[in-house]
Amino acid sequence: MKVIKRISIVGTGNVAYHLGRALLKNNFQVDGVWGRTKANAQKLARDLNTISFDQLIQLPENSDLIIICVSDGAIQEIVEKIPSSFALAYTSGSISLNDLPKRDNIGVFYPLQTFTKSRDISFDTIPVLIESKNDQFAESLKKCASKLSRTVRFTNSEERFQIHIAAVMVNNFTNHLYHLADLHMKKHQLPFDILKPLIIETAEKIKDISPIDAQTGPAKRNDLSVIENHLNELSDETKEIYQLLSKSILKNNS
Amino acid sequence: MKVIKRISIVGTGNVAYHLGRALLKNNFQVDGVWGRTKANAQKLARDLNTISFDQLIQLPENSDLIIICVSDGAIQEIVEKIPSSFALAYTSGSISLNDLPKRDNIGVFYPLQTFTKSRDISFDTIPVLIESKNDQFAESLKKCASKLSRTVRFTNSEERFQIHIAAVMVNNFTNHLYHLADLHMKKHQLPFDILKPLIIETAEKIKDISPIDAQTGPAKRNDLSVIENHLNELSDETKEIYQLLSKSILKNNS
Repeated sequence: MKVIKRISIVGTGNVAYHLGRALLKNNFQVDGVWGRTKANAQKLARDLNTISFDQLIQLPENSDLIIICVSDGAIQEIVEKIPSSFALAYTSGSISLNDLPKRDNIGVFYPLQTFTKSRDISFDTIPVLIESKNDQFAESLKKCASKLSRTVRFTNSEERFQIHIAAVMVNNFTNHLYHLADLHMKKHQLPFDILKPLIIETAEKIKDISPIDAQTGPAKRNDLSVIENHLNELSDETKEIYQLLSKSILKNNS
Repeated sequence: MKVIKRISIVGTGNVAYHLGRALLKNNFQVDGVWGRTKANAQKLARDLNTISFDQLIQLPENSDLIIICVSDGAIQEIVEKIPSSFALAYTSGSISLNDLPKRDNIGVFYPLQTFTKSRDISFDTIPVLIESKNDQFAESLKKCASKLSRTVRFTNSEERFQIHIAAVMVNNFTNHLYHLADLHMKKHQLPFDILKPLIIETAEKIKDISPIDAQTGPAKRNDLSVIENHLNELSDETKEIYQLLSKSILKNNS
């Protein structure tokens, strides 16, 4: 099993930034950064105390691993452009290994988290899902990930796909509900801030209690008159969403 | 303005329990507890180191305040049964003061939080919304709430109603998405636990970033092919919910 020590990063978004910082912090050598937009690559290179490349063919041969942190639609093209001598990992939740060109050392290194550049995050709490058809390489990736995170798990493409669906539900959709609540509060000149302790506690609760047992509120109590009053106040898609989610909670009561 | 020192509690649910504990911790005297079910009242009385009453007419006359922590549908009946000499507050997000019998000292003491008996919570971070048509009594309630919480706010019934709608969205609906994700993970023999860091971070993020700026994921990226692949995996109401929420996020992009 090859030990991964030197890494180059392809991509300059939120994942590239936070993964790069975690690598540096854990004493990996970040050889360099490539990005489609030169200025972004230069900026990330500065943040990671390394150099940037203009061309993918300039990636340094002594890097043990190239981590590809680009949007799903760009992964295939990037993989095709990187010489086959390089070992590659990509950070996508959706793209199956079967959809990419076969090569000896290619794998998945998927940190299951939502990243924003402006917000620090402890990488060691983030589950990292590892996959490769090459068992030796999978072990190398796992060992590398284990230096960054306490939770590393071999996960095949099908499992990763299912986990990604669940992640969309608990992250993207939940955050969208925060946004709709924010709009609702603004509409009534009320401060969104007052909801923040409730938002935090709703999430913290599931550390101890399963979501089905944590449920409270009018739909859980079969309180149809409160639901009706709320629906009469809402319009458009917020009303539709309120209706559909209440119906789904009510269904659980029966 | 009358200073509230001695309190009796009507109701034995999660709110009664956590509010009672917070009152004790902040050196209020809890004179006693009444509950529809005798055994529950006795149990809560033991937890709060006080006594229980079988009848509402037994509520001790020297209590400065009776806090009514019962379900919305039971509030009116309870208010009617308590002698008019008592000052009352109730803890509901939905019930308007106008829907209850008029009396000199009646008000709202609404802690905006989700409570579960089995989970400790710091009451001092919970916003408490106060309302009364009697300004003096409103001040008394505010002063009492300020001993328990750092965030106390006068809020009229209309505002409280709107806040309650937003609270249902960020708590009940968000928690229901956790539940649907839990079912999805179970269906595919995957551990729900692996989603917990993502759930926590999704909530924590909005401390620093507005929800609209925090959004990520396939709908935000206009990635219709990922959305389509996910929808093909889902069925029933989870599919409907995925579709509706994705549509709503996509609408924000345009």
